[in-house]
Amino acid sequence: MVRMQLENAPAAAPHDASDHRFLRALRRQPVDMTPVWIMRQAGRYLPEYRATRARAGSFMALAQTPELACEVTLQPLARFALDAAILFSDILTIPDAMGLGLHFVEGEGPKFARPLRSAADITRLGVPDPNTDLRYVMDAVRLIRRELGGRVPLIGFSGSPWTLACYMIEGGSSPNFARAKALALEDPALMQGLLGTLADAVARYLAAQAAAGAEALMVFDTWGGLLAPRLFREFSLRWLAEIAARLADDPIAATLPLILFSKGANAHLEALAATGCAALGLDWTADIGEARARVGERVALQGNLDPAVLAASPEAIRAEARAVLESFGPHPGHVFNLGHGITPDIPPEHVAVLVDTVHELSRR
Amino acid sequence: MVRMQLENAPAAAPHDASDHRFLRALRRQPVDMTPVWIMRQAGRYLPEYRATRARAGSFMALAQTPELACEVTLQPLARFALDAAILFSDILTIPDAMGLGLHFVEGEGPKFARPLRSAADITRLGVPDPNTDLRYVMDAVRLIRRELGGRVPLIGFSGSPWTLACYMIEGGSSPNFARAKALALEDPALMQGLLGTLADAVARYLAAQAAAGAEALMVFDTWGGLLAPRLFREFSLRWLAEIAARLADDPIAATLPLILFSKGANAHLEALAATGCAALGLDWTADIGEARARVGERVALQGNLDPAVLAASPEAIRAEARAVLESFGPHPGHVFNLGHGITPDIPPEHVAVLVDTVHELSRR
Repeated sequence: MVRMQLENAPAAAPHDASDHRFLRALRRQPVDMTPVWIMRQAGRYLPEYRATRARAGSFMALAQTPELACEVTLQPLARFALDAAILFSDILTIPDAMGLGLHFVEGEGPKFARPLRSAADITRLGVPDPNTDLRYVMDAVRLIRRELGGRVPLIGFSGSPWTLACYMIEGGSSPNFARAKALALEDPALMQGLLGTLADAVARYLAAQAAAGAEALMVFDTWGGLLAPRLFREFSLRWLAEIAARLADDPIAATLPLILFSKGANAHLEALAATGCAALGLDWTADIGEARARVGERVALQGNLDPAVLAASPEAIRAEARAVLESFGPHPGHVFNLGHGITPDIPPEHVAVLVDTVHELSRR
Repeated sequence: MVRMQLENAPAAAPHDASDHRFLRALRRQPVDMTPVWIMRQAGRYLPEYRATRARAGSFMALAQTPELACEVTLQPLARFALDAAILFSDILTIPDAMGLGLHFVEGEGPKFARPLRSAADITRLGVPDPNTDLRYVMDAVRLIRRELGGRVPLIGFSGSPWTLACYMIEGGSSPNFARAKALALEDPALMQGLLGTLADAVARYLAAQAAAGAEALMVFDTWGGLLAPRLFREFSLRWLAEIAARLADDPIAATLPLILFSKGANAHLEALAATGCAALGLDWTADIGEARARVGERVALQGNLDPAVLAASPEAIRAEARAVLESFGPHPGHVFNLGHGITPDIPPEHVAVLVDTVHELSRR
C-alpha cells in the first residue's frame, strides 16, 4: 500500500488523491474528518441523473457510453462534499460480456436475455478480456479519473461471483434465488466451476480497472446473505477470498484497498476480514461499534446508516448519523456510508444534510 | 407450563395433546423424535388449498369462515406426518378489526383500505375485543381444536406490534418500510403509543386464542430484522417482552409455550430469549448449533431450513435436513421447521420427503 510521508498533509496535489481521507481511512490511518460517500450516489434520486438517463435512451446505453457514464459519475460530486467517486456502471457487466444479454426492465430490475439453463450453458462460458470485451468500462474509468483531477479517489467495482451466478441462473432478480441455490445443492461441482470462472473474470476485471486508474476496488456480494452459513462459506466467501488473493498478486491492484460488501452476512464478519481485504462494507442491521470490536484491528469498516433514515427529517438524519459515528468511536478506519444503496424517493437536500453532518461531527 | 407425570408416555388420549412431542420439545423435554411443522403449511403449494380458496372467493372470506379456515388448516395434516397444526389466518387480523380494511391484491400481498396517515388516525385506534371483534378467529380455533381431536397441538398466532405498525403505516408491503421507520425517528412518542396499543391488542388476542383452545402461541415479528439494532430494541423487542409478560399473567395463556420469531434478528437472540418466551423461531441464515450454544439453556429453538431447499431434489432436501439436525445435535428443545414460510412453487411430495426425513433421522 502507498504510504505518504506527511501523515497530516492536506488533500494531495491534483491528479494524485492517494493521501485523500477516503484512502487514508481505508488504510486505517488518522484522518481530519470521517470520509463519506453513498452507495448509488449517482442515481435516480437526482433530477440531473434522470435527465442524462433519458438522453441516453436506456440504462445500458448510459453505462456503455463513457462520456455519459463520466457525466453521471460526477453529478453528485457537484452537489455534495462527497469523499469518493464511484464508477457509474452495473454489477452485472461481466455476464453481459459473456453473452447473456443484460437489459433493464422498468420497475423489475436487471434481466438476461439468455440466462444459464443447462450444464452446457455453463461450461461453454469464456472469461471476458476486460480491455476488449469491457473496454467501455476501462474508457469510462480513464475519463472519470482524468475529469476528477485528483479531487477525490475513484472506486471501481464488480458484483461477486455468487451474486453474478444468482442473476445468471435466474435470468433476473428473485425473492430467494431458489434456482441458484438448488444448483449449488444438486450439482456443487458444476456450481463451483461456474463460480471459479466468474472469480477469474472478476479478478481480471478489477485488475484492469486498477490499471485504467481506479484508486480503490469494491466487490458487491449483494446476495451472499441469502445463504445458510455453510453455503455462504463454500459458495460466496471462498470466491471472495480467491479474488482478494488474486488482486494481492497483481502489481497495480495490490496497491489499492479492496472493500468487500456481503449484505446480510454479519454473522461472517471475522471470516470476511480474514480474506486479506482492506475493508468491509456493513449493512445497517449490525451495530458498527460491535462490528469494529470484532474485526477492527484487521480491516476498516464502511457503513452503515439505514438508507430509510434519509426519508426522515433533517433532525432525524443528523441524530442517526451521530449515533453511527459515536458507535464506531474515535478510532481510525471508518468510511461513512449507507448500509445499502440510496433509493429514488430521497430528496437530494437530505443527502447534503447527511454529508455535511458526518464531516462536522467527526472533525478532529 | 403443563407437566405430565409420565415423562416417556406416548401421545396422550384424544382431545389432549399436552404430552405431544411438539409441546414436549417446546418445554425442552426428551422426545421420541424431533417434531416438525412448516410455516405456511396450509397454503398455495397445495392444490386442495387452491380449490378451497377458489370456493371461498377471497382470502379474507376463507380466513373469516370458520368451517373453511378449519378445512384448510387440516389439509396438510392429511398429507404429511406433521407434528402441529397452525390456525389458518393472517398476521394482520388485529388492524383489520381496528377498522383499517384488510384485503389482498393478487401478487402484491396485503393492503389496507384505510392506512394510518395522521396522528389522529393513530390516537383514535381502539383495542379490539377478541371475543366479539375477532370472533371468527375464536370460532375457528374452537372448531379446529375439536376436529383435531388431540392428534396434534394447535398453534395460535399474531403479528408483532412492530410488524403490524409497519403495514398499518405503509398501507401494504414495502421494500424497506421507510414511512414506519421515519415515524419512529421523527415522533418516537407517537410510535410508542401506537405500539403500546398494538401490544395490548396482541396480548388480549393471544390470550383469547388460548382460552378458545390454542395449545401454543406464536408471534411473527416479520419485519423486526429490518431495524438497526437500537431501533430493534426500542420498537420491536420491547413490545415482544411486554406481550410475553402479559401472557405470563394470564391464567390460561401462561400454561402455553410462547414462540417468538423475529426474522433477520439473529444478532438479538440472547435478548429475545430473555423475554420469558419458551422458544425462538430462527431463520436459515443462522447456524442453529451456534444459536443453541448462545441461548439453548433458556429456550427451545424452532427452525431453520432454507425454504429454497424444498425446490431442490429429494436427495438435497434429505442432506440439508440432516445438516440442520446434526448442527442442533442430540439436545432437547428442537422443533424442526423452515426458516421462513413455504413458497407456492414447492411440489407437495417434497414436503413429504422433508417431514419423513426429519422423523427418520431423529428417531431416538
